[in-house]
Parts: sequence; structure tokens; C-alpha cells
Amino acid sequence: MSTFDDLTNNFSRLPGIGKKSAVRIVNWLLKQDGAYVQKFAQNLGVLQERVRPCKVCGTWTESDTCPICSDPLRDSSIICVVEQPQDVSTIEAYGEFKGLYHVLGGLIKPLEGVGPAQLAIAPLLDRIRGGTVHEVIVATNPTVEGDTTALYLNKLIMELGVLPADGGRDKIKVTRLATGIPVGGDLEYIDKRTLSLSFRGRSEF
Amino acid sequence: MSTFDDLTNNFSRLPGIGKKSAVRIVNWLLKQDGAYVQKFAQNLGVLQERVRPCKVCGTWTESDTCPICSDPLRDSSIICVVEQPQDVSTIEAYGEFKGLYHVLGGLIKPLEGVGPAQLAIAPLLDRIRGGTVHEVIVATNPTVEGDTTALYLNKLIMELGVLPADGGRDKIKVTRLATGIPVGGDLEYIDKRTLSLSFRGRSEF
Repeated sequence: MSTFDDLTNNFSRLPGIGKKSAVRIVNWLLKQDGAYVQKFAQNLGVLQERVRPCKVCGTWTESDTCPICSDPLRDSSIICVVEQPQDVSTIEAYGEFKGLYHVLGGLIKPLEGVGPAQLAIAPLLDRIRGGTVHEVIVATNPTVEGDTTALYLNKLIMELGVLPADGGRDKIKVTRLATGIPVGGDLEYIDKRTLSLSFRGRSEF
Repeated sequence: MSTFDDLTNNFSRLPGIGKKSAVRIVNWLLKQDGAYVQKFAQNLGVLQERVRPCKVCGTWTESDTCPICSDPLRDSSIICVVEQPQDVSTIEAYGEFKGLYHVLGGLIKPLEGVGPAQLAIAPLLDRIRGGTVHEVIVATNPTVEGDTTALYLNKLIMELGVLPADGGRDKIKVTRLATGIPVGGDLEYIDKRTLSLSFRGRSEF
């Protein structure tokens, strides 16, 4: 049963899908409407050819520049820097951020041999030099690698010494998303580092 | 981004995969080797055309009769009746059963309109009438529907009155897999019905 086994192996390579789930999925697919399965196969076949990184921000798109970068109503004075394209979808789904994005394509991980040169850092600096940016929000995850990358970006952007677009006298603001106890969270189950950061980042009423 | 969204929707229809996992999978696929993704799409495209039910037992196969039914070394005097093709894989993986299989394609579910006519029961009776069968193991799940279907099959097979292949004077044996506490299980967490059945099915040392 080579097609069955091959397809099971294809599915079990996907993230979050084990051998048993893959067998279950292939058995399920065999009982589905042929049109759905054909369309599925077709979409999968053209995926990598049609979907490519946006030339400006690096998120996935089917055109040269993504709909966000091409939208004149977005606030081009704020760039939100994220690790991966799916982070753009996550922030867009929340729907309150109206600025632009920049996808790094990873985080600085010296142990895995990923340095600044492997990330889309130079294009980010070029965008900032362009002169319309007022604030850069570094929205990498609050992990060791995410924090290291954020610190490094802050240093580079400060060194640029570019004045912000609004003509202010201060340098471009580089900010980081707040770390703390998530809404609905419980002090009892929160780790020490998060608790420590939530104390440091406390705010007045 | 229609291909991206379409493919995400295709993935999120699969059993056990939600919207978030689907987005994660498509993002992951975009970064994979093109050869893998192309082969995956191709396997998916030919799946329903190549893989069909075995003409004898009903399990999935790429030939007319499956490798199990075609294997002269399998014991044709025992038929293990299962609900779905994946049950065949499960029992084969355990590797100790050397008889043949018969896939019903479902269970009797009067409330969902599935009666005996919708299941592969007539072909099973034909196989038994063939005269080589000595025992039928009904391996449907120990649920209300599985038990109902097993009881119904037992009744039909008894009514056939066919003598077993080994020339014995008794009728064909119809058996059911044992229900009880799973190995490594804990009495404290076992449901009442399983406990009750494990008492009834208790064995001597």
C-alpha cells in the first residue's frame, strides 16, 4: 500500500501530527468528497510557487508587496518587528495595531549558528533610514533568544542616530511588548521570572 | 492570500486539526524542501484513485485483493470482524493475529439511520458460507453500538448453521475480545461498567 503509507509519512512529518494521527487522517480522507481532496492536493502543490515573502516586510503574500505594506491607511511611522510571518497573523487577528510589520525570519541563536547576518536585520535598518519611522516595537517572544535579539536591535537602531519622521528632537523610540501575568492568570502558578518582570513593570492606577 | 487561506481551510477540516494548527502547518510547509511538498501534493492527489477497498475483506489496498487476503500463509479458518480499515492496521501492528479480516464499514446505529443493510454484513455471511471458517472474532469496540452489532452478527452466524471447516460437530464459534481493566490501569479510575465486565469475565490462575 505505497500511496497510503507514503501519504501517512508525509502527514506525520507535519508539526504536531504523529504517526497515529496521520493514519487517522489518511483513513478519513479516503472517505471524503473527491472534489475537496483534489482541491486540497492542488493548493498544496502550488503553495510554495504562489506564496512568497513580501519584498518590504517579509510576511507571506501572493503579490510583490503584501496587502498591509500596500495599504496607504496603515501608519507607516510605527514598525512592529516579529520573529515569523505567523506572528503577523496573530497581531492582525487582535486587530488593534495599525502600523506596519517587519519579519526577522528567526532570532539570534549563537548555539544554533544563527547570527544577525541570517536575519532580515539589514533591510529593517534600511527601512528606518528611509526616514518615516517614529517607533519600532520589538515584538519577539519574551525568551532568552527573543530578549537578546531585541536588545541587539535596540543597540543598532540607537546607533543609526536617525531622527524620527515627526521631526521630534529625540531619537527613534524602540519599545518592547510588556511582560507580565496574563489576564485570567493566577499568581500561584506564575513562574518566578514572569513575576519578577511584572513587579518591575508595575504601573500606577 | 487566497492559496494560503484556502490551504489553511483544507488542513483545518482534517480530524484533530484546528484553525491554529492549520496556520502553523502551512507556515511550516512554506519553509520546507520543495520536493517533499510536491510529493505530498501528488500523493494526496492520487490517494482516492489508487487506494480502494479490498474486494474480499474491505480494508484499504492498492490491488484488487489486499496483501493479507492474498497471503496463503494466513489462517483462513479465523476471521476477525472490525468496524473500520484502521482497526486492521492496529491489530496488524500488534502482530500476533494470523487469521483474516472483515471490515464492516461502520456499526449498527439506528438513531443515525445505519442499519445492517449499510454494512458489509452480507459479504461476511457469504465468506462464512464458503466453508473454511472455524471462528469469527467480533472485534468491534466495547460500546453500545459495538456490542449491538456484535450480538446481531452472532445471531446471524448462528442461524446460518454452517459447520466449521475442521469438520467438528459444533457450530462455528463466534467470539468477542475481552473487556476489562487495561494493563497498567488503576481500579480507582476505572468506570463502573468496565469494572462490572471485568468481574464477570474474571479468570482462574
